[in-house]
Amino acid sequence: MKPMKISEAVVRRLPVYLQVLNDLSARDVQTVSSQELGNRLDLNPAQIRKDLAYFGDFGRKGIGYDVTYLIEKIRQILKLDQPLNVALVGAGNLGRALCNYNTYLKDNMKITAVFDVHPSMIGTSINGLTVLPMEKLKETIVERHIRIGIITVPAIEAQNVADKFVEAGVDGILNFAPTILRVQDAVRIHYANFTTELMSLAYYLDEEGEENENEADLD
Amino acid sequence: MKPMKISEAVVRRLPVYLQVLNDLSARDVQTVSSQELGNRLDLNPAQIRKDLAYFGDFGRKGIGYDVTYLIEKIRQILKLDQPLNVALVGAGNLGRALCNYNTYLKDNMKITAVFDVHPSMIGTSINGLTVLPMEKLKETIVERHIRIGIITVPAIEAQNVADKFVEAGVDGILNFAPTILRVQDAVRIHYANFTTELMSLAYYLDEEGEENENEADLD
Repeated sequence: MKPMKISEAVVRRLPVYLQVLNDLSARDVQTVSSQELGNRLDLNPAQIRKDLAYFGDFGRKGIGYDVTYLIEKIRQILKLDQPLNVALVGAGNLGRALCNYNTYLKDNMKITAVFDVHPSMIGTSINGLTVLPMEKLKETIVERHIRIGIITVPAIEAQNVADKFVEAGVDGILNFAPTILRVQDAVRIHYANFTTELMSLAYYLDEEGEENENEADLD
Repeated sequence: MKPMKISEAVVRRLPVYLQVLNDLSARDVQTVSSQELGNRLDLNPAQIRKDLAYFGDFGRKGIGYDVTYLIEKIRQILKLDQPLNVALVGAGNLGRALCNYNTYLKDNMKITAVFDVHPSMIGTSINGLTVLPMEKLKETIVERHIRIGIITVPAIEAQNVADKFVEAGVDGILNFAPTILRVQDAVRIHYANFTTELMSLAYYLDEEGEENENEADLD
């Protein structure tokens, strides 16, 4: 089953909705209105209703959304109901920090292998994962059915790591190195660049120190 | 001067354009076509032309964009032509990794202060910055005209840090903790959540291991 076309902005908001819904579920909240979700996420409720309407008619007027049902639906849409193994290359500060997120990745998505080129790193343990040499990358990715590769190496080494990931057969790359990668079209790349995050936040700060109104287009 | 309304997706792409343009400029490239930019960024050239058209008529048919001029324009739009001081709370692995990005932040945007609650961290140095105690947060933010606060503490401490940032008068927060923050409307929050990044990447991997076609809406 092919998913329908959903804009990237919506795909980026879905995990955020999921985070809030999981939080509500943990506190035994049964239903939530788009207004409440909007308050928690600083999003217009109409935007939320529009986003969720892509996936079916979940909400009920005057009652809101069933939290458990909505969690299940979003998990399906994001394919979090299936196992997804992830590998990481670059066991420096950032790589170590990301491995510690495994604790939050309660879903089937997990970093299951960590690699580095530095002999001093190889064999050390990060949050239960042993750092492996790059020579083991391909066989480990194949054996463990790893589909996503994370790059946390310096910019100058990132393309080389990306090439190795692609050769080993990953389907997606999350690149933290501040550089644009070139890979074949079949591999999806997302950039998690701290610098660009900061720059896009800076855009919204105006000269007087007040936030600009910059709401998404609403129906 | 108030900037015009630009969609968040475009604002997120502008720093990426800037990164490629800076790279071209460093190699003395004078002009670039939307086709070349598209190849480098794995984006449809029509999308790039549309994005850049928001800001004026930069491109020339058959010649392309003037690299230097486009860099200058994007820097103005993102307000990178003005100094922007940033503070960070949480000097763990992630905080340390982000401080090291200062090297890439060639623009006026810099992390100029780092804070932590742990006595063992206070007074230590990260990439030339001395870790300060939380008691110094407010006075440092005021004195150094810091406008953005970065949160790299555990989820459970994040709201408390956000409250302190807001009280100290920052205009924007970049939150790396995997939790939704509540702050007053005037303060803009961006979330840099590794988990949500991974989840939105996972969305684009389909069952057969091939990328889904999911192009942005083009005119």
